[in-house]
Amino acid sequence: MKQGKQISVGLVGLGRLGRQHADNLAHRIPNCKLMAVCSVIPEEVEEAQQELNVPYGYTNYEDMLRNQELDAIFIASPSSYHCEQIEQALEAGFHVFSEKPLGLYMEEALRVQKAVRKHPNQVFMLGFMRRYDRSYAYAKKQIEAGAIGEPVLIRCYGIDPAQAMPGFMQFAKSNYSGGLFLDMAIHDLDLARWYLGVEAERVWAIGGSHRYTELAELNDAETGAALVQFADNKMGIFVAGRNCAHGYHIETEIIGTQGSLRIGTVPEKNQVMILDDRGVVRECANGFLERFEQAYMDEAVEFVQAILEGRQPKVTVEDGVLSTALGYACKESFESGQLVDVRMPAAVTAIK
Amino acid sequence: MKQGKQISVGLVGLGRLGRQHADNLAHRIPNCKLMAVCSVIPEEVEEAQQELNVPYGYTNYEDMLRNQELDAIFIASPSSYHCEQIEQALEAGFHVFSEKPLGLYMEEALRVQKAVRKHPNQVFMLGFMRRYDRSYAYAKKQIEAGAIGEPVLIRCYGIDPAQAMPGFMQFAKSNYSGGLFLDMAIHDLDLARWYLGVEAERVWAIGGSHRYTELAELNDAETGAALVQFADNKMGIFVAGRNCAHGYHIETEIIGTQGSLRIGTVPEKNQVMILDDRGVVRECANGFLERFEQAYMDEAVEFVQAILEGRQPKVTVEDGVLSTALGYACKESFESGQLVDVRMPAAVTAIK
Amino acid sequence: MKQGKQISVGLVGLGRLGRQHADNLAHRIPNCKLMAVCSVIPEEVEEAQQELNVPYGYTNYEDMLRNQELDAIFIASPSSYHCEQIEQALEAGFHVFSEKPLGLYMEEALRVQKAVRKHPNQVFMLGFMRRYDRSYAYAKKQIEAGAIGEPVLIRCYGIDPAQAMPGFMQFAKSNYSGGLFLDMAIHDLDLARWYLGVEAERVWAIGGSHRYTELAELNDAETGAALVQFADNKMGIFVAGRNCAHGYHIETEIIGTQGSLRIGTVPEKNQVMILDDRGVVRECANGFLERFEQAYMDEAVEFVQAILEGRQPKVTVEDGVLSTALGYACKESFESGQLVDVRMPAAVTAIK
Amino acid sequence: MKQGKQISVGLVGLGRLGRQHADNLAHRIPNCKLMAVCSVIPEEVEEAQQELNVPYGYTNYEDMLRNQELDAIFIASPSSYHCEQIEQALEAGFHVFSEKPLGLYMEEALRVQKAVRKHPNQVFMLGFMRRYDRSYAYAKKQIEAGAIGEPVLIRCYGIDPAQAMPGFMQFAKSNYSGGLFLDMAIHDLDLARWYLGVEAERVWAIGGSHRYTELAELNDAETGAALVQFADNKMGIFVAGRNCAHGYHIETEIIGTQGSLRIGTVPEKNQVMILDDRGVVRECANGFLERFEQAYMDEAVEFVQAILEGRQPKVTVEDGVLSTALGYACKESFESGQLVDVRMPAAVTAIK
Repeated sequence: MKQGKQISVGLVGLGRLGRQHADNLAHRIPNCKLMAVCSVIPEEVEEAQQELNVPYGYTNYEDMLRNQELDAIFIASPSSYHCEQIEQALEAGFHVFSEKPLGLYMEEALRVQKAVRKHPNQVFMLGFMRRYDRSYAYAKKQIEAGAIGEPVLIRCYGIDPAQAMPGFMQFAKSNYSGGLFLDMAIHDLDLARWYLGVEAERVWAIGGSHRYTELAELNDAETGAALVQFADNKMGIFVAGRNCAHGYHIETEIIGTQGSLRIGTVPEKNQVMILDDRGVVRECANGFLERFEQAYMDEAVEFVQAILEGRQPKVTVEDGVLSTALGYACKESFESGQLVDVRMPAAVTAIK
Repeated sequence: MKQGKQISVGLVGLGRLGRQHADNLAHRIPNCKLMAVCSVIPEEVEEAQQELNVPYGYTNYEDMLRNQELDAIFIASPSSYHCEQIEQALEAGFHVFSEKPLGLYMEEALRVQKAVRKHPNQVFMLGFMRRYDRSYAYAKKQIEAGAIGEPVLIRCYGIDPAQAMPGFMQFAKSNYSGGLFLDMAIHDLDLARWYLGVEAERVWAIGGSHRYTELAELNDAETGAALVQFADNKMGIFVAGRNCAHGYHIETEIIGTQGSLRIGTVPEKNQVMILDDRGVVRECANGFLERFEQAYMDEAVEFVQAILEGRQPKVTVEDGVLSTALGYACKESFESGQLVDVRMPAAVTAIK
Repeated sequence: MKQGKQISVGLVGLGRLGRQHADNLAHRIPNCKLMAVCSVIPEEVEEAQQELNVPYGYTNYEDMLRNQELDAIFIASPSSYHCEQIEQALEAGFHVFSEKPLGLYMEEALRVQKAVRKHPNQVFMLGFMRRYDRSYAYAKKQIEAGAIGEPVLIRCYGIDPAQAMPGFMQFAKSNYSGGLFLDMAIHDLDLARWYLGVEAERVWAIGGSHRYTELAELNDAETGAALVQFADNKMGIFVAGRNCAHGYHIETEIIGTQGSLRIGTVPEKNQVMILDDRGVVRECANGFLERFEQAYMDEAVEFVQAILEGRQPKVTVEDGVLSTALGYACKESFESGQLVDVRMPAAVTAIK
Repeated sequence: MKQGKQISVGLVGLGRLGRQHADNLAHRIPNCKLMAVCSVIPEEVEEAQQELNVPYGYTNYEDMLRNQELDAIFIASPSSYHCEQIEQALEAGFHVFSEKPLGLYMEEALRVQKAVRKHPNQVFMLGFMRRYDRSYAYAKKQIEAGAIGEPVLIRCYGIDPAQAMPGFMQFAKSNYSGGLFLDMAIHDLDLARWYLGVEAERVWAIGGSHRYTELAELNDAETGAALVQFADNKMGIFVAGRNCAHGYHIETEIIGTQGSLRIGTVPEKNQVMILDDRGVVRECANGFLERFEQAYMDEAVEFVQAILEGRQPKVTVEDGVLSTALGYACKESFESGQLVDVRMPAAVTAIK
């Protein structure tokens, strides 16, 4: 650890979310210095360096890993790079933060888990930022305090704004997104495990493409629903989609034996209510950067803090692996039309 | 009282509200029979008789008062007729229900009061229907149960929908509406007295016409605000208007020493929420018939019940007189620009 | 049809809902006269006759069916009597309104269907009153007008208040309720078919009993969830329960290709908001009589109107049969733990 | 300006808000370095220096003003010090940010104005942070875009949580707070001017103390209401108070000729809704630090940015002077019971 207890971070990936992380790491995270940025697009590197006063810039990830001034690597590159970049960074001795997912395939998730376990003294954190959103964190505290008795059923909506659909269609035609459930529902699957406190056992997932019918040709769905049976007869309902007319709809409900909690029932943009000839209108958040601005900051704060305090964050690599396993079961059920048993990887359950 | 305890009612006035009362009295009020209808427009009489199976029809009010089969008169004629029609009906021995206001002028209100006091054994009821609205009645019960401690400040909004404005402009050019405060705020002034439990002492009222500027030429306002000092330093805030873009906005708030109550914060049309590219939309009620449908029924139930039980309803003629006095003080303040003392008529206060 | 076009109704069943129907039929339904009431409990008959001025009273249903002055029979008796009483009343030549369900078993539903088809000139109406609730009816109109594009997914909550649980437990120990999905979700299953416009194909239903664990011994669940695949890859999510802490939670959401509708997102009791040391509180409706007061009236208005106009109401016996078939599929899936194909009775599909 | 364009700030005042500013200036404001802190309480200085890594600490304000490394002074000391500290800092050549108010007396506000005008090349910014709150800023943009037509009436609530009352009572007994309207409503008075775009002309203010009656002895009120007539017959309604049961209630409504905007209708703490035996509960924000966390950051960002860009922020010293003048008129009206003309200081209007 350097003197003055400031963590030097190198960030890879300068897309929309990557750039937001860069802004945060540069300015808004205590005890943190954004020392390096990396992207295969030189213009992105230059611009970020200039605007955010970042000393080092790279177009090659391995070059960045050779920078001895860095303490930690922050990975915000495309999903297909996550697994290998995590492995490399851990191997090079860095603390690692990675955006979700651990990888595009179950095997990748397990590779990451293996790498993380091999380096127990390095901090590894997965970007399940919702746990750091104030409302989600408050709900967790309420549950732990017994406010709703025993959580019995969780319902999660994760629906992207319709206006992002044309862009996604273009992407999906030449890339593997993981499919609706893995791509969109992974945060919700993690939340369900977190709030219910048990693991999934069986799942049935269905879906359809009624507006962008070409999605069906890609073996994917525009809107999907999964019903998950968790241990102890607990239940999970998941609606994932890409065609939300009113914005970015992230909503969660936890029904307990003594009460319920709802988070984000209507995904309001701000505290302004417009009353006009339409009626009373609440405009909605239009994307993850707007909805989870605070959470993206606070997860980085936690990452830096974990490094400074020499501890692991509460979100573990196993959380990533188990959520991915459940996501794969949803995908398999959707594709086969059948009820699917969630197979928890032996490696994970062994350690738990 | 006739056998079987059914009250026979004669209704005068078959405009929009009158016709609604007719439907209610004909079909939805227990122990009540709509026996006669009266209007100066013969077609209205005929249509109501036919559609609602009403035995008697009149185009002359005095003729109706000679019908010996009637027990009670229900007055829903234009405001300028109220005072005299009430006096005549009481004199003829009938129980009387009258729509607000008691009259267009303070003198008329006092004449009605005198007539009512002269016939203490006949039921007289003034159509302050909001007291019978379920939400308003529930709020009263909560206050009486101490839910908000001592009521200290009341805020009332009464704003007509903008779409009714052109019709009103036409009416206002050749009729005396009483002006914004008397016409629109009278229900709110009554509610304020009811909830606060004290009478008004001083008032300052202001207003302006920014869209329909011709209203200013009529010495009236499109939107007005009055601040009223009640006894015991209690406060009343009243916003009255005729230009509500989103519908019929009736909203009331009572701030107490231990909590507050709000009624109708957003004047929702029903329980449907529309989520579309505008955001989350709640459509609004578009007029008094829609908002107060249940209250118009329940006040008639109460009127009939009071007759059957030989008692007076809780809304007294004095409530009408005192609310009118306060309305006149608002009007005077608005017209003079000055702070005005509310002069409670001696005749009223003497009896209280 | 009698002169004056007034329908004389005989009502069987004077429990909570029956008594509410009696009040409505006696006072609030145009062109309707409550002529007879029937219950096996003589005190209920007497009390209803007296309070509502009902000429005839019976403790024997068959006696009532012999009353020649009646036009129609209104059935609000316990579910186990519905099937036979409908058959008898139709056979005796009456128009028939029956509370849901058509019967406790699929066979009974089919028997009712057969009887109804045998008497095509008599009005038969099933009490799917939600279709007459103003908010539900408004949502239907919005969908038909294209407000949300093509309906793709429906989510329905039907959860009884926890405070009714002790009473239900007592009932359930010695009676066959039909189980959670048939008893609680039947209205929702009908709504789903109505809004989506297609029939169900496959279902998976799960559930658990976490507070009243003795429910599991009865092979029933306290809270259950069903995922239904409808034709055209449309989806239905159903949550049924008996343990709602905050009241009677009836909520419906329809997601379309261009927008969504939500009905009853929070089951508010009225328009009053209480602001106190807890925060901002909306109290909730505590039962079906409170929530659907208007719908219970308007379905009776429709029944009487259909008789007067010599037509069938829009809710058909087939709606009842198909919803029941879906309910049975949910029940079978819950009990077997397996994915179940919804078997639409041949008799029904034949005619559609 | 120093190389690298980083502004070095010295902060005076380390009370609750001061400490929050310190945290922000130290960590969350781009291009800003918290170089010095000052408080008369040595422990506060020490703690802040240590926890936030602040190089210089002072217990004497004048000592801090002699630090040549500083570019700007941030004043968060008690209100009675603002005027003199602003004057001193400007005189010493620093850019100055000051928390509201400009001073406790009208004379002080004018002294500050004079000092600011004397140093036109130094940035001066007054902490009217609400203008930087996202919801308030969004409302302003909507109004400028014509969303509600011409703004006609504004209603502002500013009510402190009841739980802070005991603390305030202790403070008020030995300090001059400025009274309810100056202390609590000053932000709202500024907002009213900002949104309506015109200045105040006349005011009537009333109030009462019903729970903490000892406030009346201090010639102050627990809850107060002011009605303000602005130019062009525009209207302002202000409710100020210190006894809000449900939390920190900051609510604003702007009624325009074509629609209305509401900000913070219910002062929700977060996006969590609790459904339990009370009903549906939204917990509320409990103070200004919670409600305006983002605004406190963004006003500091704007201050630093204005310095870097060599311009003045949009909030001017005149905004402070005019809002104070209106606050004084409210105070005078409340104390005299009379309608009061708002006297705009000649010095201000001269320049406008």
